[in-house]
Amino acid sequence: MIVLEGELFLRNFWRDRLFPKEALSLDIARNLFETVKNLPIISPHGHTEAKWFAENIPFQNATDLFITPDHYVYRMLFSHGIDLDDLGIGRRAETRKSVEPRKVWKLFSKHYYLFRGTPTKLWLDYMFENLFGISETLCEKNADLFYDSISDALEKPEFRPRELYERFKIEVLCTTETPLDDLSDHRKIIRSDWNARIISAYRPDNVIDPDHESFSKNVQLLGELTGENTDSFEGYLAAHFSRRKFFKSLGTTSTDHGHPSANTFKLSKGKVEAIFQKALLGNLSRDEAEMFRGHMLIEMAMMSLEDGLVMQLHSGSYRDHSPSIKQNFGRDKGFDIPKQLDYVHALKPLLDAVGLDKRLTLILFTLDEATLSRELAPLAGVYPSVKIGPPWWFFDSVEGMLRFRRSTTETAGFYNTAGFNDDTRAFCSIPARHDVARRIDCAYLSDLIVSGQISEEEGYSIAMDLSYHIVKRTYKL
Amino acid sequence: MIVLEGELFLRNFWRDRLFPKEALSLDIARNLFETVKNLPIISPHGHTEAKWFAENIPFQNATDLFITPDHYVYRMLFSHGIDLDDLGIGRRAETRKSVEPRKVWKLFSKHYYLFRGTPTKLWLDYMFENLFGISETLCEKNADLFYDSISDALEKPEFRPRELYERFKIEVLCTTETPLDDLSDHRKIIRSDWNARIISAYRPDNVIDPDHESFSKNVQLLGELTGENTDSFEGYLAAHFSRRKFFKSLGTTSTDHGHPSANTFKLSKGKVEAIFQKALLGNLSRDEAEMFRGHMLIEMAMMSLEDGLVMQLHSGSYRDHSPSIKQNFGRDKGFDIPKQLDYVHALKPLLDAVGLDKRLTLILFTLDEATLSRELAPLAGVYPSVKIGPPWWFFDSVEGMLRFRRSTTETAGFYNTAGFNDDTRAFCSIPARHDVARRIDCAYLSDLIVSGQISEEEGYSIAMDLSYHIVKRTYKL
Amino acid sequence: MIVLEGELFLRNFWRDRLFPKEALSLDIARNLFETVKNLPIISPHGHTEAKWFAENIPFQNATDLFITPDHYVYRMLFSHGIDLDDLGIGRRAETRKSVEPRKVWKLFSKHYYLFRGTPTKLWLDYMFENLFGISETLCEKNADLFYDSISDALEKPEFRPRELYERFKIEVLCTTETPLDDLSDHRKIIRSDWNARIISAYRPDNVIDPDHESFSKNVQLLGELTGENTDSFEGYLAAHFSRRKFFKSLGTTSTDHGHPSANTFKLSKGKVEAIFQKALLGNLSRDEAEMFRGHMLIEMAMMSLEDGLVMQLHSGSYRDHSPSIKQNFGRDKGFDIPKQLDYVHALKPLLDAVGLDKRLTLILFTLDEATLSRELAPLAGVYPSVKIGPPWWFFDSVEGMLRFRRSTTETAGFYNTAGFNDDTRAFCSIPARHDVARRIDCAYLSDLIVSGQISEEEGYSIAMDLSYHIVKRTYKL
Repeated sequence: MIVLEGELFLRNFWRDRLFPKEALSLDIARNLFETVKNLPIISPHGHTEAKWFAENIPFQNATDLFITPDHYVYRMLFSHGIDLDDLGIGRRAETRKSVEPRKVWKLFSKHYYLFRGTPTKLWLDYMFENLFGISETLCEKNADLFYDSISDALEKPEFRPRELYERFKIEVLCTTETPLDDLSDHRKIIRSDWNARIISAYRPDNVIDPDHESFSKNVQLLGELTGENTDSFEGYLAAHFSRRKFFKSLGTTSTDHGHPSANTFKLSKGKVEAIFQKALLGNLSRDEAEMFRGHMLIEMAMMSLEDGLVMQLHSGSYRDHSPSIKQNFGRDKGFDIPKQLDYVHALKPLLDAVGLDKRLTLILFTLDEATLSRELAPLAGVYPSVKIGPPWWFFDSVEGMLRFRRSTTETAGFYNTAGFNDDTRAFCSIPARHDVARRIDCAYLSDLIVSGQISEEEGYSIAMDLSYHIVKRTYKL
Repeated sequence: MIVLEGELFLRNFWRDRLFPKEALSLDIARNLFETVKNLPIISPHGHTEAKWFAENIPFQNATDLFITPDHYVYRMLFSHGIDLDDLGIGRRAETRKSVEPRKVWKLFSKHYYLFRGTPTKLWLDYMFENLFGISETLCEKNADLFYDSISDALEKPEFRPRELYERFKIEVLCTTETPLDDLSDHRKIIRSDWNARIISAYRPDNVIDPDHESFSKNVQLLGELTGENTDSFEGYLAAHFSRRKFFKSLGTTSTDHGHPSANTFKLSKGKVEAIFQKALLGNLSRDEAEMFRGHMLIEMAMMSLEDGLVMQLHSGSYRDHSPSIKQNFGRDKGFDIPKQLDYVHALKPLLDAVGLDKRLTLILFTLDEATLSRELAPLAGVYPSVKIGPPWWFFDSVEGMLRFRRSTTETAGFYNTAGFNDDTRAFCSIPARHDVARRIDCAYLSDLIVSGQISEEEGYSIAMDLSYHIVKRTYKL
Repeated sequence: MIVLEGELFLRNFWRDRLFPKEALSLDIARNLFETVKNLPIISPHGHTEAKWFAENIPFQNATDLFITPDHYVYRMLFSHGIDLDDLGIGRRAETRKSVEPRKVWKLFSKHYYLFRGTPTKLWLDYMFENLFGISETLCEKNADLFYDSISDALEKPEFRPRELYERFKIEVLCTTETPLDDLSDHRKIIRSDWNARIISAYRPDNVIDPDHESFSKNVQLLGELTGENTDSFEGYLAAHFSRRKFFKSLGTTSTDHGHPSANTFKLSKGKVEAIFQKALLGNLSRDEAEMFRGHMLIEMAMMSLEDGLVMQLHSGSYRDHSPSIKQNFGRDKGFDIPKQLDYVHALKPLLDAVGLDKRLTLILFTLDEATLSRELAPLAGVYPSVKIGPPWWFFDSVEGMLRFRRSTTETAGFYNTAGFNDDTRAFCSIPARHDVARRIDCAYLSDLIVSGQISEEEGYSIAMDLSYHIVKRTYKL
């Protein structure tokens, strides 16, 4: 029977995507997936905009939905010689306006084959099929068909942000805002009669990183927002604490820190005050800026002991690697390249200070996979505060997730990981991304079951924990 | 038939654990394993205590057997907020006494799910079933049942250390002692009428590492033990040589070196004498201490040319990462974290001096898996002295072993690896660990056979070599 | 039916080597391979000698064909204590003559088991079977049989270099020469009535690396060859450009650079002239030599913008790790060990200068696999100039290729990779190496198909692209 079933069903590879091939393993993976595929989505970290849900204005067209906001997409096209200008990417408003969205879509469709084997295509194909009912493979010939079908759909009421949020069965959606944000969109949602949980994460990079071009202006604004005197370091800390309190009052449960490295430093009071004063004047050396950022991670961790906010650290990206692109097109245009990282020495000052404190939850993300088995799993496997964040960015992918589980589980177990993050600004891709994550976890668990490492009963329990419970617990949602 | 067999047997996953799933590969893996599963165990490196076998006193209870001595176990519990004090771990005797072993066992049982997917659980489940006949999964409900069954069994004569040693079919068991040890337990075993081969490895870290808190006292003791004048570097070397000779006279075939890095240095006579004198006074800088350790690795290698002792190098662990844990609970409490390592430059002075000498066997262990394919396999694949030690510590695991074979075999072959080490202080886990290693090797070989890379005949020959012959040859046992 | 076919055919593992085991995946891999296995071979980078084809003189015997020129082979034998002298390896002519080739062959045969699980054995077994019709496993007993069969065959006309070239269905074969080479053999082939495309790659290391023992002599020769005044940096650059033009006139489409690191530097005119003058006098510090090499990479890239030559960078090998071997046996005797590498910072000056220019093609090779997913795939996935070179050297292997695809595809796609390189001096191994590469790609694609990540149609298209089109396009062949 197994074989017959195999003959009948296996050619429908898409239905069983990412599952193992051998009949019995496939069977178990399918069964595991049945129990988690319809669980609500918890999205504890990402970059969607609260404004979409506050205003519930329809998305525009296929290009605005899938290409313009997605650096995964346009970086690949750029790598094959397609100019950003021709894709409508750029900070210069006149450039953007001059490109017809349909023309961009056609250019993209013609080059869609470049994405073969990438998660981007996996997500897009999922959306084309599940959201817009198109199951062909996008190419130059059917570009118009896709464009029109998508544009037509987007005009329908059921494709507005709030309606999609509900269709996607999202239970919580976290956005990410700076301390300078007034969270007016979040407040609008709370005040509305729409019953959804859309909360922010406190991401203070632009008031913590002295290398940020508006650092001192931002620190001043932070003072104005909070009524604290941010001319002194003490006042600056008080302003942070006050602002965290404000975020928390609107549902926030976490902070997020995007640092170039994971370095932390414990500076003396006098030292940090002196560096802070120099930072306000824009006078810091490279080392001093690094020390200030590193010291602030410890300050943030110490505030977390008090207010309970879960702390996320995303480090190790060389941002805006090409100065020419940064100058002409702005930040975050796909030129962020991972670099080698060390956590063992870098985090020691922070862990020495607060790493054993059970009140702290510190979620570590990495772009250097060599650190997974060597550093992150051993650290998370002993420090009560440390959890390993899910595969991030380039590694939010089939192989990235498999390597992640294979590199961390044996040392840290499942229960020192933090649950899946979609970490996306592409709202419609959220179900596709959770689908991949849940499938991969089921495939991995099926593997452990069939190889006798865990029982089937344990497998079902873990699948549920990975898809739902762990992320809620870790992020205090 | 293959399918029928599949249907009948495959659900018994535990029996075929760690084997491939596809019918034919599974079949071959099973057949390979049949030929090696009952081979005697060679344990060439580990941390059991000779005293257990010299005195043959029964083990106490489940907690003393499985939890208290095993940092794999209590570090995981600690990472989930369970205090070491509540586990009876600690150097303060009063703490340890105050905790009831059964209470610790219950705490452990309640949290046993944390170990899902870890080798610790794989080993424990094996012991529960094979040693104590319990095949349920441990949990809070059956905690007492487990505790009582194990305690009852431990009182029986067949559960005493010597009887277990025989039941486990151990052919050689190596312990690890410092040069200051008088090996009285080993001598007692030799003098007894019990016919077992329990030998020591010469591990001189505490008389070689100037950062060790009792370094100069230990050097003095070394002098007293050997009658050499260890006030001079020359006498200090002579004392080492003499002590190695003493170990060798009691069966020792290897030395072992646990250094923070793999750095080696060839210092001039004058330079090393000066550093040695400063070391005795406790005056070394960090760099000088590193140079002294690195120089001593070369001295040890040169002694190996003369006395033939096989040299093991375990480097790359950041020991006792948390100063607070070290201060309150002592060394080796699960806070050892791997760090990035380089062997190519670090070992060059040693390899330049003696690396081409066929009399030397230098077994390199790593905690940085990135070095396996990049450095260790290429080094072992050309230097006649260099062999790659088996997956160590966190990587003594299913995935760790698979990555090890996949990363080393193609460049260094099977015959430049050193054979499996259980490296454990948990005596009862030895058969479980060798079982995992043999199964993984058979699974890997089955893969090579079914993918046409080696013949079945070669597969059988390699399986035998990996389980038995290579380790005997490499360690000169 | 699938099962029956399985029972009948699967035991013939060699036929299906490197393919997946599960019936349906195997079936798809086979079908994919059918469409590419007979495609012509494009060999865009390697180290065969044009002279063989210019003169078409028969190869001598099994030892000269398989052992003496192949460091993969003799490094493994050396690692097991076999002296290079006994293998006829060495720069001292008298040594080489004194060893009887048949005796070397027997020594090799006796130790052939050491190569189990290595790509060397996979290639050799392929050659023994496909070229010489011997399908036994080589061992001590059949050593003479092998030796005689091979020697007999080599005397036949169909085993001469040109005839093998045609039998191998080679479409283009690239050799590698220094700028000082007069390419007389290439010209001889062009002038001959034999219709084959054997072209050179411009590899200027010995006139660019100031650490090369004949650097200043070579620079002078370069001047003489081109009529440029290479006493000045300007003249030196002009000489390079002139020489590139000469190579290009004989069909060359690429340059190749073997640097210790990937470091690049953009020096001022004055600075580089000063360093160049010191280099000619042999007076450079280590850092200055590194700066000069790094600056020259940018100069070479800038010339590529003009003449269109594709640029290959092979970096990260610690060459001639053992000084004793280098002194007694010369360079390149198997003692090249990979080392840790960084591309993100190292290449930044070059990429800042010319990385966005679509006229440049820069193919990056690595020996540090940790850089694949962390650095190379993200760089190639955005910079239009950057392509990822195929698995190099120790990683030109089954597992190396699988890791390569799994680490690069998801971020860079298939179309930012450069196609397979056999990179060999063992001419007869070329079909064996392309066979492995094509099989692994088909196995990988079958995996993507069966797991629903690409369609079967896409799989066939990619298989063709990977085996043929991509390499032609990337190398402009």
